[in-house]
Amino acid sequence: MSTPMDPSIDILISEVGPRDGLQNTKKIMSTDYKKRWIDAAVEAGLREIEVCSFVPPQLIAQMADASEVVAHALTLPGLNVAALAPNFKGAQRAMQAGVHKLTLTISVSTQHSLANVKMTPDEAILSAKKICAFRDSLPAGQRPIIESGLSTVFGCTLEGVVDEDAVVRMAVASVEAGCDEVGLADTTGYANPEQVRRVFRKVRQAIGDKLSGAHFHNTRGLGLANVVAALEVGVTTFDSSLGGLGGCPFAPGATGNIVTEDLVFMLESMGLKTGINMDKLLAIRELVAAGIPDEPLYGYVPLAGLTKGFVAASSRP
Amino acid sequence: MSTPMDPSIDILISEVGPRDGLQNTKKIMSTDYKKRWIDAAVEAGLREIEVCSFVPPQLIAQMADASEVVAHALTLPGLNVAALAPNFKGAQRAMQAGVHKLTLTISVSTQHSLANVKMTPDEAILSAKKICAFRDSLPAGQRPIIESGLSTVFGCTLEGVVDEDAVVRMAVASVEAGCDEVGLADTTGYANPEQVRRVFRKVRQAIGDKLSGAHFHNTRGLGLANVVAALEVGVTTFDSSLGGLGGCPFAPGATGNIVTEDLVFMLESMGLKTGINMDKLLAIRELVAAGIPDEPLYGYVPLAGLTKGFVAASSRP
Repeated sequence: MSTPMDPSIDILISEVGPRDGLQNTKKIMSTDYKKRWIDAAVEAGLREIEVCSFVPPQLIAQMADASEVVAHALTLPGLNVAALAPNFKGAQRAMQAGVHKLTLTISVSTQHSLANVKMTPDEAILSAKKICAFRDSLPAGQRPIIESGLSTVFGCTLEGVVDEDAVVRMAVASVEAGCDEVGLADTTGYANPEQVRRVFRKVRQAIGDKLSGAHFHNTRGLGLANVVAALEVGVTTFDSSLGGLGGCPFAPGATGNIVTEDLVFMLESMGLKTGINMDKLLAIRELVAAGIPDEPLYGYVPLAGLTKGFVAASSRP
Repeated sequence: MSTPMDPSIDILISEVGPRDGLQNTKKIMSTDYKKRWIDAAVEAGLREIEVCSFVPPQLIAQMADASEVVAHALTLPGLNVAALAPNFKGAQRAMQAGVHKLTLTISVSTQHSLANVKMTPDEAILSAKKICAFRDSLPAGQRPIIESGLSTVFGCTLEGVVDEDAVVRMAVASVEAGCDEVGLADTTGYANPEQVRRVFRKVRQAIGDKLSGAHFHNTRGLGLANVVAALEVGVTTFDSSLGGLGGCPFAPGATGNIVTEDLVFMLESMGLKTGINMDKLLAIRELVAAGIPDEPLYGYVPLAGLTKGFVAASSRP
């Protein structure tokens, strides 16, 4: 991993709820609620939050306050402030706002890439190269870590099966374009644990420790199963979303992102330190629910409660 | 495994819906619906079904037709007809009905054992010994395989943490009592993948291939993650329930058993043959929903659909 990991934790949870979780909501969460959510997440122990995406406000009104949200997040000590950008213009705005980490969405499948960012995968790599060059032109201290967030890595709703060699090629091309890290995203909820092990191994063989984290969706209920597989092949950074907000739900009840609460419970139960306090994490749901009252929140641990006698790994010396 | 595995499959799914899934329903599923469900499950490729439990009808009216359901299931060629019994009397009735496999519920935690079967764990072992002796007294061809279904193996809602050495002791005691197999059940949804790997390894070290399958609940969303962990340590038999029916839900939305549809999808996607046809399996939900219209059905794949380009391992030569 290129992002330095806090030595007191085993696994870095990157909370993507304020970005991935809010961009498709029916009601727009107010800037004030976003700030309170981010404050509460940091208070619960989260070290990295993807706080927004820099997309045209006329396309996604939910992200119109991106710069203000970043400015607030930057006041919180110890927080790695991440944001997403689909193109050069968005990346410029993100860097002007002062994000620590910038994730570029680069689809492996051509159809998804065209639909999502109006570029072919090769054009998206050229755009990444331009963005990295712009970043390198900034004064030291203003240069964010740039992550290539490879999308549709495990399958595409438009194209179906995605060629694993193409994934490796795009990972290598991302690094050659100047990206510091490459994350692998199961944008569509297609991944299975066997494939996760295989693809992460292949990409690591090609780009070594430039391979960063995993972004899994729970569309077919395999999200945490895929985390277990990724842990086995050495992945230590996972994206997740409070209440499973966001993602690409195909049908009512089919959730998007993996649920931060369930993920942290699983890891802490397994003896892996996330640095996150479960009780404080669970309490954030109420705040988020109040901020977007019409949105369903997912997750099992919030309903079932912690197990009797639960001791979080992070609470052990 | 003591139960001979069909050589054409990699993983045996033991459908427990007609037993575990129906014993707590608000409306009682009619015998006719139960028979149609079992027929449809066999038609979809399921090789083993726990069709009922032999409990006192005055306690669980849902199982009053146990013998009739077994009689019907026994007419289906190739089906391993399993049933559950909590005590000697129930076990006798199950054997009289002619089941192929009889699972005894034996709790590792004392409090759960007393609450569930009014015996201490040691008394339950003595009961198992008596049941196995009775079985051995039957004419050849009428002796079912007897499985010790160890409950609360991964934690107990009453006692909290369950001692892993106690699990091993109860597994050994079950074998010494005459049980052919020992299955490990996460009755309460407490298990995590690390614990699953560790406990299955310990029990296998103690009783070798008498260790049979895993029975996981999805109460905290970790059901399929625990399956992945169990696969790693060589488990090849999994209980699951169509629509996730049954189990011990603690709260609305917290499901019980792992969902057969999602489990089969995951395994087949991973390249593991279950012998089950996904489309036929998914079609059973409608029948079950009609038989118990007020009961919520769980599962992600039924909502999201199969992935584009999905090819089941079982459909490959």
